[in-house]
Formats: sequence, structure tokens, C-alpha cells
Amino acid sequence: MRQSVPLDRCTRLLNHGPTVLVSAEHAGRRNVMAAAWSMPLDFTPPKVAVVLDKQTFTRTLIEASGRFVLAVPSVAIAALTGQVGSVSGRDVEKFSDVLAAAEPGPATGAPLVQGCIAWLECRRIPEPHNEQAYDLFLGEVVAAWADDRVFRDGRWHFDDADDSLRSLHHIAGGHFYAIGNEVKYVPLSEG
Amino acid sequence: MRQSVPLDRCTRLLNHGPTVLVSAEHAGRRNVMAAAWSMPLDFTPPKVAVVLDKQTFTRTLIEASGRFVLAVPSVAIAALTGQVGSVSGRDVEKFSDVLAAAEPGPATGAPLVQGCIAWLECRRIPEPHNEQAYDLFLGEVVAAWADDRVFRDGRWHFDDADDSLRSLHHIAGGHFYAIGNEVKYVPLSEG
Repeated sequence: MRQSVPLDRCTRLLNHGPTVLVSAEHAGRRNVMAAAWSMPLDFTPPKVAVVLDKQTFTRTLIEASGRFVLAVPSVAIAALTGQVGSVSGRDVEKFSDVLAAAEPGPATGAPLVQGCIAWLECRRIPEPHNEQAYDLFLGEVVAAWADDRVFRDGRWHFDDADDSLRSLHHIAGGHFYAIGNEVKYVPLSEG
Repeated sequence: MRQSVPLDRCTRLLNHGPTVLVSAEHAGRRNVMAAAWSMPLDFTPPKVAVVLDKQTFTRTLIEASGRFVLAVPSVAIAALTGQVGSVSGRDVEKFSDVLAAAEPGPATGAPLVQGCIAWLECRRIPEPHNEQAYDLFLGEVVAAWADDRVFRDGRWHFDDADDSLRSLHHIAGGHFYAIGNEVKYVPLSEG
């Protein structure tokens, strides 16, 4: 069900702007947070960008380990996504249930949270000015995975799968929309 | 119909990851392109990030003028969005029809393309290293606007409007999904 995604196709996992879970591990401590502010940055090698507030424990783990995962949660785990977007894991491991259902990513060791539909394992690209001035972190994707019920042949296929496998898109204050249906349109002439 | 959006709410226009149109004007030349890779970057003052390839004429105009607009196209203009995402405006003004239906933004003079459902007028924040190494441009939002049929009271309301007003989310190769419906879920206990 979880299949490897070729690196030259992995930015397509994020093209449509889903909310992501950011997870990391260092010295036996793990954490996960939700982030609405992420995007692909480049194709070859594939890179991503994500905004990580200085208050977050996940950021601390990423600064220490240099590794993180961006994962795409599905409608099936909307409640979990809302929770890890509103509670900090700095002081106690509040997400033990979530993280119990995570396994170490083969490429990075950072947690792959179950119930997601895609996972991008990343190596942090250190850019101290961006990190300090803008909370902006860059990463190179070193491995990518997706649930083949919704991502096959290098692209998403949400229309022919169960609605619980659609991606989440944060609106405000813990409210999400699901991705909808493919838009049919007649391309304009390029003349 | 187009209403001003308070700056402290304007990042919500992009939280859910829509494909955007990037438009700019300099010395009488205008252009517009599509970009799947953009995101909010900060709340106060509001900032955004967008990836602009070195080949694009829009980037040239932004470098010259220091101003740009990120606009959120709707399903109603999917064909237009697909076209301006696949054709360059460098040599001739290929988007004369599109740009004829644009008016100068009150804050920046950059074109506000008709048929969009939100517009963020931005001032480029010069970051030469990011621009050269990553094609990554940052901007401060100086004015924001939205169509009050779908954005009211500081948030999106797609469910009770016509489906043609939903945002577009690029999957791959000119294929878009529309944003779907709000996800109903029971929040987990924070205990």
C-alpha cells in the first residue's frame, strides 16, 4: 500500500497545497506538528520549504538531527491533525498515541505517521538567515512514499478512491477543507 | 463584490494551498503567470513566499518594479490559469485578453486579474541569495482583497457558494482539482 515515489515526481505530492504533518526524531525524543505553510522549492534535486515557529519542539529536534518528514494527512485523521496543530509536545510527549503509530523512515529515521497518504523524508539545508529571520526551513527530499490507493503513476487520483483518503487543507482555527474533484476544462488555444 | 481584507487576516487567503496567478507591471509592460509553489510566511507584517523561475518574464518585471500580486484563480478561469501556466509572455504580450481584464492594484499598480477570488498586493523583500540560489522570492503584503461571495468574516466559505468560485489546486501537467467541502470532525481531547 505504501509505495516508493521516484524523486523526480515527489514534488507533485505537495503541488496542490495540502496541510502537512512535520515530524522529527533526535536522541530518542520524537515529535510531530501540523503546518499549513509549506511548498515545493525545486525539482532536481527535489527541495521543499516549510515555516517552523521558534516555539515548536519539532523545530528543536530538526535543528539537532538535521532530518525531518513532511507527511500529507488524510480526512481520516483530521482530528489528529487538528490536535497536533494546537498542542505543543515540548514538555511531555503528548502525541504518544500518534507516535506509537509511526515507524522510522528508512532514509532518515524520522517518524512516518500512520494514516497519512504521502511522506517526504528530508535532509535540512542549513540556511541560518532564513531560519532566524523568517522561521523558514529548507530541505532536500531524499526519499518519498505514497499510498497507492490515491497516488499512482506519478500523480494523485483522489476521484476514484474513498473520500476519507482526500488531503486536508487548513482554512483557519482548526477548520479544514478536503481536496475536491478534478476540474474539467477545455484548454485555450495558444495561438 | 471585491472587498478589502484586513492585513491580519490575509494569510488565510493562501492557507489552504491554492494555485496562484503572479502578476506584475513595469514601465508599461505587464505579465501574468501561474504558480503552484507559494505559501504564507508570516502574520505581522504579513509575508508570502513564491518560487519564480529565472526564465519567466514576470520575474523580470518584479525585479524591476519591486511589486507583484498573488491572486487566487477560481474554477471559472481554469482554462486561463492553465494557459498562463504553460506559455511565456516574454516576447509578446500573449495574455492581452487576460490583462485587458485586469486593473491596476490600488496599492502597487500591479495587475489585479478579473475572475480571481482573492488578490494580495505585495512589495518584494529583496533577498538576493534566496532569489539566485533557489528562485525563492519573498514579499510583504501591503493590501489584500477578496470576493465576498466566498471570503467573509476573515475566512473562506466555499460550501455555500457556486462551485465555479472554488479555488484551483494544481496536480500535474495542467490538471487541477477544486477545493472540496469542509471536513466535519470531533476534536480529540487535549488531556
